Amino acid sequence: MISYPIYAAGAFVTTSQELEVKQPYDGTVIARTWLADADVLEKCIVAAQLAQFAMKHLSSAKKYSILNKISSTISENRQQLATVLCKESGKPMRYALSEVDRAAQTFLVAAEEAKRLPKEFISLDWTTAGERKEGLVKYFPIGIVAGIAPFNFPMNLAVHKIAPAIAAGCPIILKPASSTPLSMLELARIIDASELPKGAVSILPMTRAVGNQLVTDERFSLLSFTGSPEVGWEMKKNAGKKKVVLELGGNAGVIISRTADLELALTKSIVGAYSYSGQICIHAQRFFVQTSLYNAFTKQFSERALALKRGRPEDPSTEISEMIDVENAKRVESWIKEAVAGGAKLLCGGIRDGAYFMPTAVTNTKVEMKVCSEEIFGPVVTIEPYDNFSDAVRMINDSRFGLQAGVFTNDLQECEQAFNEIEAGGVIINDVPTFRVDHMPYGGIKDSGMGREGVKYAILDMMEAKILVK
Amino acid sequence: MISYPIYAAGAFVTTSQELEVKQPYDGTVIARTWLADADVLEKCIVAAQLAQFAMKHLSSAKKYSILNKISSTISENRQQLATVLCKESGKPMRYALSEVDRAAQTFLVAAEEAKRLPKEFISLDWTTAGERKEGLVKYFPIGIVAGIAPFNFPMNLAVHKIAPAIAAGCPIILKPASSTPLSMLELARIIDASELPKGAVSILPMTRAVGNQLVTDERFSLLSFTGSPEVGWEMKKNAGKKKVVLELGGNAGVIISRTADLELALTKSIVGAYSYSGQICIHAQRFFVQTSLYNAFTKQFSERALALKRGRPEDPSTEISEMIDVENAKRVESWIKEAVAGGAKLLCGGIRDGAYFMPTAVTNTKVEMKVCSEEIFGPVVTIEPYDNFSDAVRMINDSRFGLQAGVFTNDLQECEQAFNEIEAGGVIINDVPTFRVDHMPYGGIKDSGMGREGVKYAILDMMEAKILVK
Amino acid sequence: MISYPIYAAGAFVTTSQELEVKQPYDGTVIARTWLADADVLEKCIVAAQLAQFAMKHLSSAKKYSILNKISSTISENRQQLATVLCKESGKPMRYALSEVDRAAQTFLVAAEEAKRLPKEFISLDWTTAGERKEGLVKYFPIGIVAGIAPFNFPMNLAVHKIAPAIAAGCPIILKPASSTPLSMLELARIIDASELPKGAVSILPMTRAVGNQLVTDERFSLLSFTGSPEVGWEMKKNAGKKKVVLELGGNAGVIISRTADLELALTKSIVGAYSYSGQICIHAQRFFVQTSLYNAFTKQFSERALALKRGRPEDPSTEISEMIDVENAKRVESWIKEAVAGGAKLLCGGIRDGAYFMPTAVTNTKVEMKVCSEEIFGPVVTIEPYDNFSDAVRMINDSRFGLQAGVFTNDLQECEQAFNEIEAGGVIINDVPTFRVDHMPYGGIKDSGMGREGVKYAILDMMEAKILVK
Amino acid sequence: MISYPIYAAGAFVTTSQELEVKQPYDGTVIARTWLADADVLEKCIVAAQLAQFAMKHLSSAKKYSILNKISSTISENRQQLATVLCKESGKPMRYALSEVDRAAQTFLVAAEEAKRLPKEFISLDWTTAGERKEGLVKYFPIGIVAGIAPFNFPMNLAVHKIAPAIAAGCPIILKPASSTPLSMLELARIIDASELPKGAVSILPMTRAVGNQLVTDERFSLLSFTGSPEVGWEMKKNAGKKKVVLELGGNAGVIISRTADLELALTKSIVGAYSYSGQICIHAQRFFVQTSLYNAFTKQFSERALALKRGRPEDPSTEISEMIDVENAKRVESWIKEAVAGGAKLLCGGIRDGAYFMPTAVTNTKVEMKVCSEEIFGPVVTIEPYDNFSDAVRMINDSRFGLQAGVFTNDLQECEQAFNEIEAGGVIINDVPTFRVDHMPYGGIKDSGMGREGVKYAILDMMEAKILVK
Repeated sequence: MISYPIYAAGAFVTTSQELEVKQPYDGTVIARTWLADADVLEKCIVAAQLAQFAMKHLSSAKKYSILNKISSTISENRQQLATVLCKESGKPMRYALSEVDRAAQTFLVAAEEAKRLPKEFISLDWTTAGERKEGLVKYFPIGIVAGIAPFNFPMNLAVHKIAPAIAAGCPIILKPASSTPLSMLELARIIDASELPKGAVSILPMTRAVGNQLVTDERFSLLSFTGSPEVGWEMKKNAGKKKVVLELGGNAGVIISRTADLELALTKSIVGAYSYSGQICIHAQRFFVQTSLYNAFTKQFSERALALKRGRPEDPSTEISEMIDVENAKRVESWIKEAVAGGAKLLCGGIRDGAYFMPTAVTNTKVEMKVCSEEIFGPVVTIEPYDNFSDAVRMINDSRFGLQAGVFTNDLQECEQAFNEIEAGGVIINDVPTFRVDHMPYGGIKDSGMGREGVKYAILDMMEAKILVK
Repeated sequence: MISYPIYAAGAFVTTSQELEVKQPYDGTVIARTWLADADVLEKCIVAAQLAQFAMKHLSSAKKYSILNKISSTISENRQQLATVLCKESGKPMRYALSEVDRAAQTFLVAAEEAKRLPKEFISLDWTTAGERKEGLVKYFPIGIVAGIAPFNFPMNLAVHKIAPAIAAGCPIILKPASSTPLSMLELARIIDASELPKGAVSILPMTRAVGNQLVTDERFSLLSFTGSPEVGWEMKKNAGKKKVVLELGGNAGVIISRTADLELALTKSIVGAYSYSGQICIHAQRFFVQTSLYNAFTKQFSERALALKRGRPEDPSTEISEMIDVENAKRVESWIKEAVAGGAKLLCGGIRDGAYFMPTAVTNTKVEMKVCSEEIFGPVVTIEPYDNFSDAVRMINDSRFGLQAGVFTNDLQECEQAFNEIEAGGVIINDVPTFRVDHMPYGGIKDSGMGREGVKYAILDMMEAKILVK
Repeated sequence: MISYPIYAAGAFVTTSQELEVKQPYDGTVIARTWLADADVLEKCIVAAQLAQFAMKHLSSAKKYSILNKISSTISENRQQLATVLCKESGKPMRYALSEVDRAAQTFLVAAEEAKRLPKEFISLDWTTAGERKEGLVKYFPIGIVAGIAPFNFPMNLAVHKIAPAIAAGCPIILKPASSTPLSMLELARIIDASELPKGAVSILPMTRAVGNQLVTDERFSLLSFTGSPEVGWEMKKNAGKKKVVLELGGNAGVIISRTADLELALTKSIVGAYSYSGQICIHAQRFFVQTSLYNAFTKQFSERALALKRGRPEDPSTEISEMIDVENAKRVESWIKEAVAGGAKLLCGGIRDGAYFMPTAVTNTKVEMKVCSEEIFGPVVTIEPYDNFSDAVRMINDSRFGLQAGVFTNDLQECEQAFNEIEAGGVIINDVPTFRVDHMPYGGIKDSGMGREGVKYAILDMMEAKILVK
Repeated sequence: MISYPIYAAGAFVTTSQELEVKQPYDGTVIARTWLADADVLEKCIVAAQLAQFAMKHLSSAKKYSILNKISSTISENRQQLATVLCKESGKPMRYALSEVDRAAQTFLVAAEEAKRLPKEFISLDWTTAGERKEGLVKYFPIGIVAGIAPFNFPMNLAVHKIAPAIAAGCPIILKPASSTPLSMLELARIIDASELPKGAVSILPMTRAVGNQLVTDERFSLLSFTGSPEVGWEMKKNAGKKKVVLELGGNAGVIISRTADLELALTKSIVGAYSYSGQICIHAQRFFVQTSLYNAFTKQFSERALALKRGRPEDPSTEISEMIDVENAKRVESWIKEAVAGGAKLLCGGIRDGAYFMPTAVTNTKVEMKVCSEEIFGPVVTIEPYDNFSDAVRMINDSRFGLQAGVFTNDLQECEQAFNEIEAGGVIINDVPTFRVDHMPYGGIKDSGMGREGVKYAILDMMEAKILVK
């Protein structure tokens, strides 16, 4: 069995607490790694403090060279990294490959942005008090970053914290999900082979108890958490003086307008609904279809959902596979049962087989049902009809979440209305809410989080303005 | 009779050459002023050179105060300025008032932008050659500006050169049109009462012969010309080393798409077609209407054109009045005759009465006819049907001009296509090409000019970057 | 006695709990107002919720007009507002007038920035996933703002929350300090006379117990607090899901370098040290003087400190007057005693007379003494010698605070070093840390706060990004 | 002998007119290539027109990939390209290698900037006229670019036109200098191997007569010329309607202030004065040394000048070698003679040996002498003393040129004064005017040119703004 020592303060180490990593598909153990204990974490924090000086003084050229090298090494090891990622997460190979490509792209964008850190030059002589004075505003690294990443994009969501931190000049300690730490430990080797100062990056699987120090320890200046809303908002309360960025989930909505291109809407929607079994923060969960298209849409959507190819994740033709564990599949099953008991109607799916859950669509739901109001994080969608576009917008907004929304329309006014009125961090026209490229600002409002990621925006959160007046 | 001495190097002076200003409506002389001769011009150039130092060193606070004061004084004298402008240009009062308001707004925006002149702060350590170096980029006044303004917006188009020049810290000598110099000489008094250094602004009516020195004299660093394409491009050839900004005319097109709001399109189109008898650079000249709407549009358009109220310009209810002079009315008449002789069909109008020309629309035109291919600068439009949106775009682009275009549509794809494919400086959705607000970038491509006005953009053209490396 | 009803949800109301406002100079009661109770606060929160729609939909033109009108009305009532402010705070008239001018300027800048809210237009086709897609990023009002302002700049520090909130389109409920609520209630009348939607601004004196709801109530989306570090950081912990901006204090340092202009340094330092008896967040507290200048500086500084004219605050010639209350004067006295007991030497001052405390300077201090390590918020400075500039920077940084610092130098390398190494939100060259103009980014790092004010930066904190992808 | 077919419209072709390329060092023929005739040029123009559509529609991803590939291929062929460049230009190997590295860097920066083309999103509702309207500003390729490059940086100065053109989406026809076309024809092969649409780049050695069509032909939308002032300004007059960017020369000044680090100043100055025998637009030509340092500086400068190692350009240890041809060496000789005849004193050098000219310094010059007032483009400097910094600034500015200037100082006020008062496109603190990195804005004022290069700035000149109002 392969062993993955953890990456602590520039060294690969083991601890007394072994962690077996299992394949969600069939539960076989694929590798072992270790959980960092409090001592290891302490050592990493001290090393991060020591690395601060070197990190702050890296030139643009050096940061570019480090980040670009990591990016190209990821690309060179694309297939191998995707295989690890595919196995540990049960994510079908096609999506694993795409995630690795995005991780490389995220490092590349960070390399470029490291040369373009924000700087301002402003006149201060707007009143006589500032006569003959000018201001230079430069952004300096905020301090040590604590990053916590989830299981569903084990690599790219962690990279969205590490790459900006390096670009900003901040040391970072990253806690990957305990179920999926391997791809990040692979990445640790790539990072370690670069010219990055040792101690600037540590990658430490931890129990939640040990990891909680990332939240409470005042030596961290920023906590960047991606995960569930409940955990995230609780962390904010315990974070002390540090800044907090929360990338949480949602129950993203999609509108299929009267003027939509139906074929386009169907093709995109199936992907948004069922890729990686819906275990995606911006999974397309709630569909609102204009009455005139409702029957055609639901019929074809259900047919295509049922036609998705189930299989082993490593098989390149697989479109859907097991969820991350049986517990989650059972949770999804219970939510569906609650909905059906409350009057909802199954359009397709609804059946569980171990950790596998069939692509499912329900209609006739009520807004209080969990399938509507909570983040389902499974291969389930609701599809409801609407008459007027304003109704659809109102239904999208009738949620405590607000991450992204998709709108299929060819109507200029609907497009404007969607942008101005949908309460979310992103509105995607003629695509599903699941759309994301790595340099765009990304993040939620309402209970879906605070702060924005996307390389340039994440960097900004990791820096502090200082003005020189002269 | 009222006398308007000209504004030369901070003094109001007369010369040996008197200039009578006549009302286009009935040809009566309303005031006299004077034409600057070469000596006066020379004195103003020298004064401008002397004012350069003071202008360069004005603080933001002082520039703001000067420009804001001019703006508010214009607003306070709104009615009186509009009356002068209305009389000298024959522009209906409603449009004269709007022009005065825009002049005040242009000075206000310049006041604000004077505090926000472009400044950059960049890192230079992208390679080892620049290690530890940073760059500050500051924009300095380019030098003395020569401005030449046309008769059709005697005030605001001149203000679009003067206000940015003050904000940029450049002295300026402005030549108004000889037919409409009065409103600018009124403005000269307002400027003179401000704290602007004397000599920084001169306003000199001149013959074209004398004025040609604005083009050729190397002491000017920038020539900013608004007027006809022929004159403008010829000036560029003779401009020596100086920078040239040309705001010329066009034969702006309008598309009425299948998805257009017909009532909105009609209301806006009548204004774009006939306000100030079409004597506007962004006059809506060529209409392309989707076949399904063609009959309805032409019928109602003609009816509304004929219903426009002719009258004295000073009468607040007047919608259309005499053109600037009989020569131009005759020119328009001859172009219509050429078109009709070539097979074009009159939808309405076509009749001249002295300097007055009826609101006119023709169809069945050919692209080579002057009414299509040249800038008509009169109350004439062509209206032609089209089938596919791509055809309409192609017809719009089949012109040597490219200033602005209007597109009435509610279709998202048509909107995108219009933006990406129409060859013009501006594409106005659901409004006529005649739309302009004073802070937006405005200017043409192809034969319609080079450079952009709109306060911030005009300021940029009047400044030069200097980098400090350290 | 004058009565000031409080400004609740667009109405001026009284409550059952009266509040007498006393003049710090002699303790006489100058006016009465009322404390908002929980019912009044609830009513204001509901009104703010109702005003959200109207605020979000205000055009730039309307916001500009409202904010500009408030600004000019403040200027028109300059003398009267300054008198109220002078009386309630005991701030000498010269400083009160300057604060009123700055409040007018802050509203003016907000008026201008309301037209320039951040907007981005980005290409998304950096990878094939984003092919043919573009992104528009627009910033929307974050929600209802809770503002808490301190006694020391009763007007302008509150205005730094209200003006940006209006520009951003956010309703705001502001709690002024209970000791100095009058100038803000004067401002309330000016705001009420504008066209701002009712309920968008409430100004409510409150007990700390009632006011705590501003911290905990989840209907507020942002808490913007200016005040003491202890209170501020505690609030952050209790703020729930809302965003928090903290503008706290510090113990600002000043370096007088070997190359300093001594006369300039002295003139500015006396103002930074003693204006408003040092009751200023960016009061110049810790002076570090290069050995070669140390004797000359301390001698002349002490002489000038003793020459400051004590008097009634309303007297235009008064330079220093009573502190806000006896308690604070006693606290300052005890800190001085502690320092002297520990070996510090008085250079001048050190004597208390009721609420008045003499301009005081001490030397030979230790870093642990309260006069060094805490925010003194009184007319006291420490002055210590240093040899190398790097030592001075190290001493400045040896503090848990980091708001602003002043550096008197004419050396290019010292200037660069100060910018890059001093840990503070602002480094002021050849001026005291007390320097601030209202459009510059302002705020602290370390224990001095989080977030930046300065109109544009405050607005940014009050808005949330939304991207439209198409 | 190696043959280099020219790169015409995507094909490598020969013509009837052969061109032998000689090594300046010893006059031996090193390769042959061909001169494009009018027919070849016409074919390339037509191909460029045809390529416009494809170029306009390249995605950011594709542009990045093309430009990045060219950059990395240049780096891979670093040694070989430098050898060609070294031979054709007689540039010492160390400088040839550096130029190749910069060419790679220029393409890399262009790759990155291709993803960041300027885009604006602005509100238009500043007045009621624009209510509910917003503007999107996008920059589109200006059309076909004509580029003319000089012999002294045969590769990188041409690349500064080609790389931005590709990033902007403009086809380009580039004319290299007839004496140094080989390195660009090497680059042509690298470009041809990329996925760039054929016809988008042509590289055509031409006689001046044929090449003049680049200036006059209206099918080009932009002429970008780097070369001598006389030729450049004449071209501007004949350029018709097209935009013109001129990167011309100068007689760059250097100030050595009282506070300068003498060793640093000497080290940098020798490089700025004599690298590539001063055949550099930003060659450090006129030195002004504060009286107190004058003797020490001139003595050590002369010693170091004489110690420079003359040799074959290919020899890695060579520091100075032959000039581009005997004619230029003779011209330099005659200017020195004129100066000495007029009273100037030789500090070192002054001797010609064929095409070689010794490193030379003169003092006691007058401002009218050619060595002062003209661009010497040879290994010659003048060194004069000054008393006050303001005198030095005045002497720098006493020139019709204004490209860059160097200032060695450690005084903050001198630094500010230099930035604000020196008339040049760039002021380099503590380095020679010869400093340039490829992403910084670079270009001259006065007779030194118009427009700015530096990748981002060059791209901007190659694009035209279009606003979408909606």
